[in-house]
Amino acid sequence: MTNPKPGLKVALLGCGVVGSQVVRLLREQADDLAARIGAPLELAGVAVRRPGRKRDVDLDPALITTDAEALVTRDDVDIVVEVIGGIEPARSLILAAMAKGKSVVTANKALLAEDGATIHRAARENGVDLYFEASVAGAIPLLRPLRESLAGDRIRRVLGIVNGTTNYILDKMDSTGASFTEALEEAQALGYAEADPTADVEGFDAAAKAAILAGLAFHSRVTAADVHREGITEITASDVASAKAMGYVIKLLAICAKTEDGRSIGVRVHPAMIPRSHPLAGVREAYNAVFVEAESAGRLMFYGAGAGGAPTASAVLGDIVAVARNRLAGTVGPEELTYADLKVHPMGETITRYYVSLDVADKPGVLARVAEVFARHDVSIQTVRQEGRGDDAQLVLVTHQATDAALSATVQDLGRLDIVRAVASVMRVEGDDTP
Amino acid sequence: MTNPKPGLKVALLGCGVVGSQVVRLLREQADDLAARIGAPLELAGVAVRRPGRKRDVDLDPALITTDAEALVTRDDVDIVVEVIGGIEPARSLILAAMAKGKSVVTANKALLAEDGATIHRAARENGVDLYFEASVAGAIPLLRPLRESLAGDRIRRVLGIVNGTTNYILDKMDSTGASFTEALEEAQALGYAEADPTADVEGFDAAAKAAILAGLAFHSRVTAADVHREGITEITASDVASAKAMGYVIKLLAICAKTEDGRSIGVRVHPAMIPRSHPLAGVREAYNAVFVEAESAGRLMFYGAGAGGAPTASAVLGDIVAVARNRLAGTVGPEELTYADLKVHPMGETITRYYVSLDVADKPGVLARVAEVFARHDVSIQTVRQEGRGDDAQLVLVTHQATDAALSATVQDLGRLDIVRAVASVMRVEGDDTP
Repeated sequence: MTNPKPGLKVALLGCGVVGSQVVRLLREQADDLAARIGAPLELAGVAVRRPGRKRDVDLDPALITTDAEALVTRDDVDIVVEVIGGIEPARSLILAAMAKGKSVVTANKALLAEDGATIHRAARENGVDLYFEASVAGAIPLLRPLRESLAGDRIRRVLGIVNGTTNYILDKMDSTGASFTEALEEAQALGYAEADPTADVEGFDAAAKAAILAGLAFHSRVTAADVHREGITEITASDVASAKAMGYVIKLLAICAKTEDGRSIGVRVHPAMIPRSHPLAGVREAYNAVFVEAESAGRLMFYGAGAGGAPTASAVLGDIVAVARNRLAGTVGPEELTYADLKVHPMGETITRYYVSLDVADKPGVLARVAEVFARHDVSIQTVRQEGRGDDAQLVLVTHQATDAALSATVQDLGRLDIVRAVASVMRVEGDDTP
Repeated sequence: MTNPKPGLKVALLGCGVVGSQVVRLLREQADDLAARIGAPLELAGVAVRRPGRKRDVDLDPALITTDAEALVTRDDVDIVVEVIGGIEPARSLILAAMAKGKSVVTANKALLAEDGATIHRAARENGVDLYFEASVAGAIPLLRPLRESLAGDRIRRVLGIVNGTTNYILDKMDSTGASFTEALEEAQALGYAEADPTADVEGFDAAAKAAILAGLAFHSRVTAADVHREGITEITASDVASAKAMGYVIKLLAICAKTEDGRSIGVRVHPAMIPRSHPLAGVREAYNAVFVEAESAGRLMFYGAGAGGAPTASAVLGDIVAVARNRLAGTVGPEELTYADLKVHPMGETITRYYVSLDVADKPGVLARVAEVFARHDVSIQTVRQEGRGDDAQLVLVTHQATDAALSATVQDLGRLDIVRAVASVMRVEGDDTP
């Protein structure tokens, strides 16, 4: 470190749970960061909405400003770190920063999933970096491996547990037999779920992440609107128990998959049964994990904390180091690649398997009539099991692979049979090599 | 891709299991690679020892040479990919290439672990890249996340299953009750183990990888000679069964850990019992996984295929893309950082826990005398259980944390007690939060 290079200045937008941890790490790790970058980092300013608010970190009042726009366009700022979240004012501030030649590190999944095209284009046009590791699966180094380490490979499918709140709820339901409501209340009491849990339990958060993952994995533009989304609010304790009895566990999965012919991709978020032997099945509590199937690398999994101030800040700092190194070298990292330009196909064309549980009349010929409905839609049955007798009789079926449209039409027709008192439960089955 | 940049030329050293897959991917992925790099890659030549040998890939005979030195120093070559393995001639060829300004991608764990200092220095002095993702844990993107994504964090500990052969053997022993020899024979029959399995089963392969991981995780120079190494040849079916009964599974672990005071590191490879609830416990067959504990990111795990031609080639290609992009940008990636310069402490100073199984005389007072030996060395006992009666009596103890020296001295003294017929088994216990 003889003849040190001048420092790089970082402007921070937002100083909440993540931002305050970014400030802490910038301070505590200052020497390490300087050694890794080749120059020291300096906090140029922190833009907040409420300057008087109590924070988890002591900040020099001179660094605090409410004028975010002035901060991100200041001549001496090199890197802008955006941890406000949401579409606006985050987007305008990022674009203003880029127009002034600043590189940007963001954790903003909503913005990237809704309007990534605009900010990726601005980064390219202004010759600046846009890094966003913290936007998906918190601390887990995932986007950089997808973008860089697997750059010589072809990804076939990504299966992710990318929302910690829903994984916590489903894990509790699985381990204790609790209902969805009971598990949600426990998650709220422990701070794993918000008072209004909609974004998590209805799959909106996971859908934004699925869009980002699919774009990176398949070099195509994917937005949150392209993602088929179903939440976990209708999962019952009985669904969880049935899954368990069959050797499965229910997880909320973000699934991005290329079709066999490689011409289109499916991107979806929904609860699914996966075999307990699958590496994702062991992901407990609020942890996240992303399972990647690549042509040459085979099956990979990345596991870790998906949220929280310190884990997310760790990912932000990793990005800051990369961006800082790039600036010192006068270069930029890999830009968004959309050369493959694959279309997202409708959910109906997705190839999947269904678990179907029917409340049926317990009399001869029931199975024959149910099987006939499956056959009519060309859906082949893998296993069928009758549970209970008399008025409690249930028929539990698991299908082979078919299009979601065919499966969905089958279920609709099953509901019309007079011998079917109710379609008790329908769930997709994933992560199983059975065709 | 209007006005394409001129191509980058790649020289390949070695065309065996990995090399032939590198050639295949360079061909099959040519368009994708060009799009990701911004310029096409071209295979400049392939150096092999036996040009007439039958290979898994068709090669233009004009590309094949036995003069590796001439190939790596050729003026038109930009990137040298070394997949020969071993110390020489790999080291000399890499140094010759770097002296001529070529960037190097290597999968050579032995060389990096034995003499990484020399080739890292040559890379630095010649201003070229040295990338080596494939050297540890095959296809798993691991080194780049450690080097780059976690650059703003501090790693406390790395626990890795980094040898697929031994994981296959231990997994078979665990799932079928087979002996070590039976499981080894099966692994050999399936091609997971070599005819001479020494490098794998005695932990040499894992020790080389542990040295590389420790160096990256703790920014210090670590060589294979610094690594405490024990293999798995003495693990018995009964050890595996005992572990199972206690809710543990035996894995060969590579462990790199910083001491509490942050002043030194321990680097070791040995079989250990880990709780079945630990994410590493679910790593089956020949898969690899590396579990990382970082101060801010928390617990992370990277899982995937640790060996094999295509997976390793996938990692090599990811490195080629990075190196190629750096060359086009006129920069280099992060160089080796050894600024922390931590010393590797002797195994005796390692803090760990022991599982000890003793064949004892079944009479009153035995436990008191055994417990006294533990107390004499300040080793606290967590659990103790007697199994069997009479001549079959066994005492099974698990300790709290203590130094390896104290534990080892305890075991030595236990062996001297007249009431102890034999110390049947001793194994370290890891991955448990119990102090």
